[in-house]
Amino acid sequence: MSKYWSPAIRQLTPYVPGEQPKVDNLIKLNTNENPYPPSPRVVEAINNYPKDRLRLYCDPDATALKQSLANHFQLHYNNVFVGNGSDEVLALAFMAFFRQEKPLLLPETTYSFYDVYCKLYDIEYRQIPLTDDFEINFTDYDQPNGGIIFANPNAPTGRQTALHEIETLLLKNRESLVIVDEAYIDFGGSSAVELIHNYDNVLVIQTFSKSRSLAGLRIGFALGHEDLIAGLERVKNSFNSYPLDSLAIVGAVAALEDVDYFNETNQKIIDCRDWTTAQLEQLGFRVIPSKTNFVFTCHQSISGAELMQYLRSNNLLVRHFSKPGIENFLRITIGTAAEMQTLIETLKQHPQI
Amino acid sequence: MSKYWSPAIRQLTPYVPGEQPKVDNLIKLNTNENPYPPSPRVVEAINNYPKDRLRLYCDPDATALKQSLANHFQLHYNNVFVGNGSDEVLALAFMAFFRQEKPLLLPETTYSFYDVYCKLYDIEYRQIPLTDDFEINFTDYDQPNGGIIFANPNAPTGRQTALHEIETLLLKNRESLVIVDEAYIDFGGSSAVELIHNYDNVLVIQTFSKSRSLAGLRIGFALGHEDLIAGLERVKNSFNSYPLDSLAIVGAVAALEDVDYFNETNQKIIDCRDWTTAQLEQLGFRVIPSKTNFVFTCHQSISGAELMQYLRSNNLLVRHFSKPGIENFLRITIGTAAEMQTLIETLKQHPQI
Repeated sequence: MSKYWSPAIRQLTPYVPGEQPKVDNLIKLNTNENPYPPSPRVVEAINNYPKDRLRLYCDPDATALKQSLANHFQLHYNNVFVGNGSDEVLALAFMAFFRQEKPLLLPETTYSFYDVYCKLYDIEYRQIPLTDDFEINFTDYDQPNGGIIFANPNAPTGRQTALHEIETLLLKNRESLVIVDEAYIDFGGSSAVELIHNYDNVLVIQTFSKSRSLAGLRIGFALGHEDLIAGLERVKNSFNSYPLDSLAIVGAVAALEDVDYFNETNQKIIDCRDWTTAQLEQLGFRVIPSKTNFVFTCHQSISGAELMQYLRSNNLLVRHFSKPGIENFLRITIGTAAEMQTLIETLKQHPQI
Repeated sequence: MSKYWSPAIRQLTPYVPGEQPKVDNLIKLNTNENPYPPSPRVVEAINNYPKDRLRLYCDPDATALKQSLANHFQLHYNNVFVGNGSDEVLALAFMAFFRQEKPLLLPETTYSFYDVYCKLYDIEYRQIPLTDDFEINFTDYDQPNGGIIFANPNAPTGRQTALHEIETLLLKNRESLVIVDEAYIDFGGSSAVELIHNYDNVLVIQTFSKSRSLAGLRIGFALGHEDLIAGLERVKNSFNSYPLDSLAIVGAVAALEDVDYFNETNQKIIDCRDWTTAQLEQLGFRVIPSKTNFVFTCHQSISGAELMQYLRSNNLLVRHFSKPGIENFLRITIGTAAEMQTLIETLKQHPQI
């Protein structure tokens, strides 16, 4: 604490990301990274980029990437916004849209950065509990609001909300913006991108960190009506002109081009997730149905904290949240088939399993 | 404009960066980029980085880079903050420190992003005119304030403020934070970094974009008392956990290691700046004494707008600000010796020169 701090920042409780261990011998299933490397085309694009050009500023509009995304999603250039990871895109969106007179509505259990942004920007918010089955029930969102945000599929539960329910939510909230955070959409979920054509009150946010294996390159994007994108650009251009560096731009463009690799690696993860789910259930675990690259699971008789420690002592790193209501669950990232086999074998050796 | 925009963002006037032309045949002297490529060690570090690892999140603390900067400046790790370009570092610093009851003081003519940040974060501010010689006169800053920021050397004037004047300012303002934006310090200026040891109310911000030829990689940093750095980390970790991607981190570390290259290229720019200044003066230009990689100059009889157009029609791109008081000046980046010779020859061919 320092007398030079702005009064508002004294109240902040920053987000804590999953551990990035400094040792190499761990099977890392704690931050939902993709077990497969990025497409060879990404590597080629970065290696071939003339590094002399790094002396020049990057394109502040990341034109090439926005155009690639527009083509990919069959949208217009003006429907696309890009940022330094989807966390930055989310933060700028909170500032652009959610500083309203009425409270923002969001699930009580969801990506835990959302309420951090609310505190950062002094946004009033109301957290709505999930059902006992960890589902989002939009009936509970029938109340005055200055915006709604949720992740679909949700994190850390992995559960998907059906598209027709999202459409009903949009119809019921024509005066509010609804943000659908689709960080995990490419592992079998149904994207709300198609709703953009008919609704100007939906903003879809996605990332290259999970399904495109580029967590280390920091690329996120938002898709929506051009007036929403214009709002994001206003905030971005009042904050940082050049959020995406030149290597991230060429890498992201190359990742989008390699459709086959994208489909193939994601299918492997989906198959492995379903195998892991079946195995865990056989071992007495409850597994929430997942449409993501992780499973959210708890054992009938061993606590989440204990299981996390047990796995850690066997060089398997998984994520545990001490938050009440989910404190007995683990969020386990889907790695390679071999990694998940190791996980299952290790669990089988637990004296109570 | 959209009904979904937060009320506050309707008032924003975003910063407009210098043009990044899409054509290649221009001599680009408009955004203060370094004419020399980054150090070969940077290229090597990026090329050698195992791209498979881009599937993993980067180190959210950029530990390696912070430690390198600490060693370079003979400071502790806790005195160093890094961000996605110095623009992001500045923006986070405005939020962390300048949202106070009393107004922020800044020069009327300086980096034009500062008042954009003030509007973004609803910070009251007061702009203090420069002297007729474009100097910052700190006597004019003897008034109640919630912080002070200026660039040293200043932009777009290029003029340096002496270190002893900055120290006096710090002494007179023990209750306020003073930010010294040293984007251009490596071209012959005297850095305020040494004052960090004795003053907890000074934060120095620098960038890799100019003197390290890495504008396209987006790396900025702040140096100051550990309580100031802790404040920045709080805001950063409430905004974006991973602002620097893995390639930027290794590139920046490699740039710091190549001291010889850094000294050599910067000396070439300094020599060329002094040559350019002498040439311009011979042609009837007024040139403000510069300690940067640009010159701020006006001709005795030709307007700034006209000169910019004339140069542009001869494939030379320079920066012109239409702001009253400096509207007859051009800001011309120092390029290679050959580029500056072309500039001078082109100017000589102007009918009024």
